[in-house]
This record gives sequence, C-alpha cells and structure tokens, in this order.
Amino acid sequence: MGIARFEQWQERLGLARNVLAARLKHLVAHGVFEPKLYCERPKRYEYVLTEKGRDLKPILLNLMDWGRTYVYGGETPAFEFVHNGHAVKPITRCMTCGEVVDMAELQVVMHDGAKTLAEIYKEKTEV
Amino acid sequence: MGIARFEQWQERLGLARNVLAARLKHLVAHGVFEPKLYCERPKRYEYVLTEKGRDLKPILLNLMDWGRTYVYGGETPAFEFVHNGHAVKPITRCMTCGEVVDMAELQVVMHDGAKTLAEIYKEKTEV
Repeated sequence: MGIARFEQWQERLGLARNVLAARLKHLVAHGVFEPKLYCERPKRYEYVLTEKGRDLKPILLNLMDWGRTYVYGGETPAFEFVHNGHAVKPITRCMTCGEVVDMAELQVVMHDGAKTLAEIYKEKTEV
Repeated sequence: MGIARFEQWQERLGLARNVLAARLKHLVAHGVFEPKLYCERPKRYEYVLTEKGRDLKPILLNLMDWGRTYVYGGETPAFEFVHNGHAVKPITRCMTCGEVVDMAELQVVMHDGAKTLAEIYKEKTEV
C-alpha cells in the first residue's frame, strides 16, 4: 500500500521508534512482513507484506466495516479501504456455491479429533 | 448457532467455569452478547449474540479461512463454518460496485481530522 520503510511506517503511524521496531520484529517473526534490504551501506530494510500477510486483507476489510458501524458509529473513520474510487463496502459470498453467505444460516461443525489452536501453538513454539 | 447456556458453552469450549464467566462478562460489557433470563428460580441466563455480535461473523469467517491455510496448513481444523451442506469458502465483493475486491489494488485513505481508536476508547471509558 505504498508504505514500506521504517521512517514511512513511523510517520504514518506516529509510534515511538522502539514500539514500532518491536512490532515489526514480531510481525516478521510471524511471517506477516518480510524485511528487504534496500540500502547496503548503511544497512536499511523495508518491510513488505508476505503472501500470508496479504491474505489478512479480507479480514481487515471486514473488521474495518464492522468498526465503521460499531466503533465510529457514523463518524468519519481514521482510514478507509478504497478501490475503484470509492470506499469498499464488503459482502461475503461463498466461492463453492456462489451465493451470498446468509450469516443467520451459518452452522459451526466441530471436528473432535482435530488439533486445537493451543496444541498447534505449543508445537510451533517447541520446535 | 445453537449454543446459549453457560453449561453448553462450557461443554463446547472446555474452559474452567471462572474463565468462561469472565469472558462472557467481558463480551456482555462490550455489547457482543446479551444475557437472557430463561429460568426464574434459580435465576439462570443464556447468552445470545447481539446485532453487534452477529455482525462479527463475516470477520470470523474470513479469519477462519486464513487460519485454515496459515495455521492448520491443510490439516483438519478444529471447527468449520458450514452452509448449504458445505464449508464456506469466503470471497469478498463490494456492495457498491458489485465487483470482487482485488486485494492488490486496495488503497488506504487516511482522514487526518478523524478520531483515532485510542481517542474513541478514552472517551468511552471516561463516561
């Protein structure tokens, strides 16, 4: 989205340098951002989204839409996701059947043998 | 989604009673669930999603889809959202223009005068 270098992130987000550095480190460790060297001397990195990070966008888009209603409640939000010259107003369809997903009809199916998030997290941190 | 009473939540989630009670209290305080009396003596409540809570579903659906790829990585996830007899495979379209949202073309537009989340949170907790 046009912002990649440490100084650009800092200007955009207005965070203290140590806070921003810690967050970027955390996001790199989780594979959401990857550092790319753009200057050899002195060594300078820019931080760009990985595929894993890019695939978070539909979540953010829907979270932003929810926040517009329930957090900002009609006031102008701090930022918007824009495409084709207008703010995106997301609606979820299912790629399998093509239909708009009726959230009232959604069912949760549990898979009893499957690993829980806690178990997966434990495995990953043990390695 | 068919689960509402404290004991049902506890059985489904496998949490300690005090942990579940604290979480439900937190979600009620934030207007995501509302308690509904279903038994007068002794007083018993069930916990059902509010409109604000129901509108979190598109976020959860997309989060689940992301987790299927990047957390479970092909393994069977602990649960799935199902409709029309199959797991939902979400794709985001824009209600304004009807198009599938091209995440690579998404732009972020900042509104400099708007309140930040920190400012909104401060207002809400001061009242």
